[in-house]
Amino acid sequence: VPASPTDREDLRERVTKAVEAFLARQRPRLDAISVDLTPVTDALESFLLDGGKRLRPAFAYWGWRGAGGQDSDAIVAAAAALEWLQASALIHDDVMDGSDTRRGRPAVHRRFAAIHRGEGWAGAPESFGTAAAILLGDLALIWADEMLNTSGLSPQALVRAQPVYDEMRTELMAGQYLDLLEQAMGGQSVERAMTVARYKSAKYTIERPLHFGAALAGADAEIVAAYSGYGLPLGEAFQLRDDVLGVFGDPSETGKPAGDDLREGKRTVLIAKTFAAATPGQAAVVRRHLGDPGLSDDGVGRLREIITETGALAETEAVIAELTDRALAALDVGGLDVTAREVLHELAAAATARRG
Amino acid sequence: VPASPTDREDLRERVTKAVEAFLARQRPRLDAISVDLTPVTDALESFLLDGGKRLRPAFAYWGWRGAGGQDSDAIVAAAAALEWLQASALIHDDVMDGSDTRRGRPAVHRRFAAIHRGEGWAGAPESFGTAAAILLGDLALIWADEMLNTSGLSPQALVRAQPVYDEMRTELMAGQYLDLLEQAMGGQSVERAMTVARYKSAKYTIERPLHFGAALAGADAEIVAAYSGYGLPLGEAFQLRDDVLGVFGDPSETGKPAGDDLREGKRTVLIAKTFAAATPGQAAVVRRHLGDPGLSDDGVGRLREIITETGALAETEAVIAELTDRALAALDVGGLDVTAREVLHELAAAATARRG
Repeated sequence: VPASPTDREDLRERVTKAVEAFLARQRPRLDAISVDLTPVTDALESFLLDGGKRLRPAFAYWGWRGAGGQDSDAIVAAAAALEWLQASALIHDDVMDGSDTRRGRPAVHRRFAAIHRGEGWAGAPESFGTAAAILLGDLALIWADEMLNTSGLSPQALVRAQPVYDEMRTELMAGQYLDLLEQAMGGQSVERAMTVARYKSAKYTIERPLHFGAALAGADAEIVAAYSGYGLPLGEAFQLRDDVLGVFGDPSETGKPAGDDLREGKRTVLIAKTFAAATPGQAAVVRRHLGDPGLSDDGVGRLREIITETGALAETEAVIAELTDRALAALDVGGLDVTAREVLHELAAAATARRG
Repeated sequence: VPASPTDREDLRERVTKAVEAFLARQRPRLDAISVDLTPVTDALESFLLDGGKRLRPAFAYWGWRGAGGQDSDAIVAAAAALEWLQASALIHDDVMDGSDTRRGRPAVHRRFAAIHRGEGWAGAPESFGTAAAILLGDLALIWADEMLNTSGLSPQALVRAQPVYDEMRTELMAGQYLDLLEQAMGGQSVERAMTVARYKSAKYTIERPLHFGAALAGADAEIVAAYSGYGLPLGEAFQLRDDVLGVFGDPSETGKPAGDDLREGKRTVLIAKTFAAATPGQAAVVRRHLGDPGLSDDGVGRLREIITETGALAETEAVIAELTDRALAALDVGGLDVTAREVLHELAAAATARRG
């Protein structure tokens, strides 16, 4: 058993190494089918290894440790499986949003469109790129399971965690669909936006990974409840931070163009709060510019001013702080491993005070 | 334990009932998240219950029985899980191909585009339809696992089958990608088209479902080998029948427009054989019309004539017959359950002599 990693950077690295080891097993399998599959493995490798905060594996790992599970390479590999799930969601998300970039590099569908264009193949490069990205996202979704099932954890542990794992994935897809619907309906309701945030992010990013680790470890009901008390408010705070970064974030830290969410017309809680507090004049400006793909930097600046002037930004920051406090208080239960409690405090800060 | 079903229609109905029962458990779960998810459940329900030959569940079930497994509702539910996997593949396939219909009804992406149009929502109906179909395909892929894991089979059986299940899914995605690539490269090679058929269909439709059932039952190596000897040639024959139906099939039986594969420009073994045997004049006609979305019925007729005149059709039919014979011969091994052998003979006929 390796030394217990209390350092977050160290766990990040172990997760990356576990993904690398898994990919080293998958590559020859695909090669054996056809050498034409090399671009598929390459694209997944670069997507998985070139970035990612590894937040979900961290919560899964510390969910396990908090419930008294011992450190092992097997639990790191099982936790790392969530990176494949996240990769699948992001690859498909970029297709659905028509996003050009991800983590500062071409999105997977753009990458395959470029290959198509470079080779001068038949048909539209964009269609090829979209189709390839759909398949790669599917493969990532499948490989999440495979990485989990071959992690080395006992069959009993895997059987215990399967219902949580299934629940997490269904909730993720439900949240994604509700988000899509909210954008299509041009929603301006704070309540609806909060529901999306709850399912798409709060549960999926924090609560369910914690529950997943807890189930693998066979945790008792008190620990599971504490993880909900911590995970749900923190997850909402995490999503609100995302919303703020989507408008005010520094491109060099977020890897996305400044004000990207504004051009995309994303209906976030921040925007809903803005509408709720805006004067008729301000609301008209927001309605006119929000979702304009060609919005200038000046336009982004004007919208930022309104979001600030209405108090929506300050109010959102206050909610983030309050939710984070509530999350931390929920960890004060007996039976929770002390080291895990400490790290979960750190992770709460990292999730809500991050800049990218 | 219910009576042993040797009748294929009876098994089909039990598979459908198992899917219905699973959906009856999933619907309230999605409803609890949001009533806005009703169209999601409805679309999946109509996709899963309104058609499908249930071929993969049949091979999985008889793979289990052939290896000595006893009939039970649990094995029927586990086998039925493969219908969700197939639904996922088809929903995503229709997005990738831009197909309007599936089984004579609007494809899932068209269904959601129509909802969007009917509600007059913001943005392009097509983009909404595509995004929704990507998510529904993802959900179907996830629900395949969930149906398998909640089938009622023992954890030991599930753990035994997991590697085959993972292999099957990875091969499916690999085959789909190679198919996509082959279309983009405008391939005219019989060999490459056969590789696609092998991975996309032969293994995925027949060999792997049989292996999946065999692994659930804990079959020995001889049975597993016999299933490969049967499944691979039969699967290729199945795909060749598909190719023939895509050109010569009756729309009332296939649920697709006549000559659909020709308008789509599908690079099948049938087309590769046509090119291989065509005169320069015939080849020029095929090259000109193949992949023309606006190809008239007369044009379809002209291409059919060439495919027949070159001998490509007769040759393909001969290969189908030869592959089917080879498949049946592979079942002559001791240890294979007699009833299962009988039904696998019937299924071979059904898979290769079908009209839709």
